[in-house]
Amino acid sequence: MLLARIVGTVVATRKDPRLVSSKLLLARAVDPKGKAEGNYLVAIDTVDAGVGETVLIVSGSSARLAVGMKDVPVDAAVVGIVDAVDVAE
Amino acid sequence: MLLARIVGTVVATRKDPRLVSSKLLLARAVDPKGKAEGNYLVAIDTVDAGVGETVLIVSGSSARLAVGMKDVPVDAAVVGIVDAVDVAE
Amino acid sequence: MLLARIVGTVVATRKDPRLVSSKLLLARAVDPKGKAEGNYLVAIDTVDAGVGETVLIVSGSSARLAVGMKDVPVDAAVVGIVDAVDVAE
Amino acid sequence: MLLARIVGTVVATRKDPRLVSSKLLLARAVDPKGKAEGNYLVAIDTVDAGVGETVLIVSGSSARLAVGMKDVPVDAAVVGIVDAVDVAE
Amino acid sequence: MLLARIVGTVVATRKDPRLVSSKLLLARAVDPKGKAEGNYLVAIDTVDAGVGETVLIVSGSSARLAVGMKDVPVDAAVVGIVDAVDVAE
Repeated sequence: MLLARIVGTVVATRKDPRLVSSKLLLARAVDPKGKAEGNYLVAIDTVDAGVGETVLIVSGSSARLAVGMKDVPVDAAVVGIVDAVDVAE
Repeated sequence: MLLARIVGTVVATRKDPRLVSSKLLLARAVDPKGKAEGNYLVAIDTVDAGVGETVLIVSGSSARLAVGMKDVPVDAAVVGIVDAVDVAE
Repeated sequence: MLLARIVGTVVATRKDPRLVSSKLLLARAVDPKGKAEGNYLVAIDTVDAGVGETVLIVSGSSARLAVGMKDVPVDAAVVGIVDAVDVAE
Repeated sequence: MLLARIVGTVVATRKDPRLVSSKLLLARAVDPKGKAEGNYLVAIDTVDAGVGETVLIVSGSSARLAVGMKDVPVDAAVVGIVDAVDVAE
Repeated sequence: MLLARIVGTVVATRKDPRLVSSKLLLARAVDPKGKAEGNYLVAIDTVDAGVGETVLIVSGSSARLAVGMKDVPVDAAVVGIVDAVDVAE
């Protein structure tokens, strides 16, 4: 899973009908200190995540399981709100 | 999902017969301000997207669900037209 | 899907028996102008593609559908010969 | 699979209910000499791995098999503790 | 598939029980001239590959088919020994 921060939301009126009731979150992968690394991605919310929160994002076919509907065309879903990252490097 | 902009179309006369009725769109991932990031990719259209529009692209096995035929050999599909991206960084 | 150019072929006598009748093509992702971008990959041919041609490559589990045998261990397949790329950036 | 080092743990109280009993490990890909390469990722533990250990991480749909529950929304799992890497370059 | 060179082996005593009888090879992607490109990965051997050989590696869910057991948690497998790469760039 990716460690990411929610940085915004995406509005899309015209979309696949199976996505109509989903909240689309704009996210960006972060390192344990919160520094952005890598590109932006859009993920479906499943845990009522909000802008500014650090989250866990699952990608690929597993994202469909997170959403709970195996036939929804998604490839990224927020599956957890991160309270703390304990690093011991 | 990727935030991307449609930058063109791809013509391929000789192709897998299951792709014959599909529109092939050339896309490029963009950041929330519309700046290109990363390489080009070719996605199947499912929402009547046009050149210049910002869209959502789903990748991997989920793209087959977007196309609505589980046995079509595609790995990227446009599943939404983006109206707005609200960023709060 | 990736836009790629076929740049060669790969010979492998000792291989998984399900790959014996497959042609292995060496490909490289290209941008719409034909400039190479990214690393090389090896794809199974399904449309009689030749060296020098620009093609569409499907990756991941969908490549198995392209090959038409769901139990063949491949993760990249050529599914189309590109005639033209119309870019309107 | 990735060669990675466990560098910490992730605490997430609010998460998908199927992840409640899982240990979330923060990992980073390493080269054979232990030098970090690439971004951080979060993986589910399946072999009682600890911070500082070098491990094998499986990604994608195969991670669900590692966890032993095909409907758990995970995309990375630790499947082995690495004792030694023998390099002959 | 990736063109890669086997550069070593990985020893992991404590691991998922389904991996116990597998040989774990350390590999690195190479270009057609044998120059390393990209990061290291660990792949399961299925064709009796040895250190120093150039091989074909299949990734993702297809690697499970290569291993011949659909429930083994692997995401990379060696499926061929490369005899020659003919490049015509």
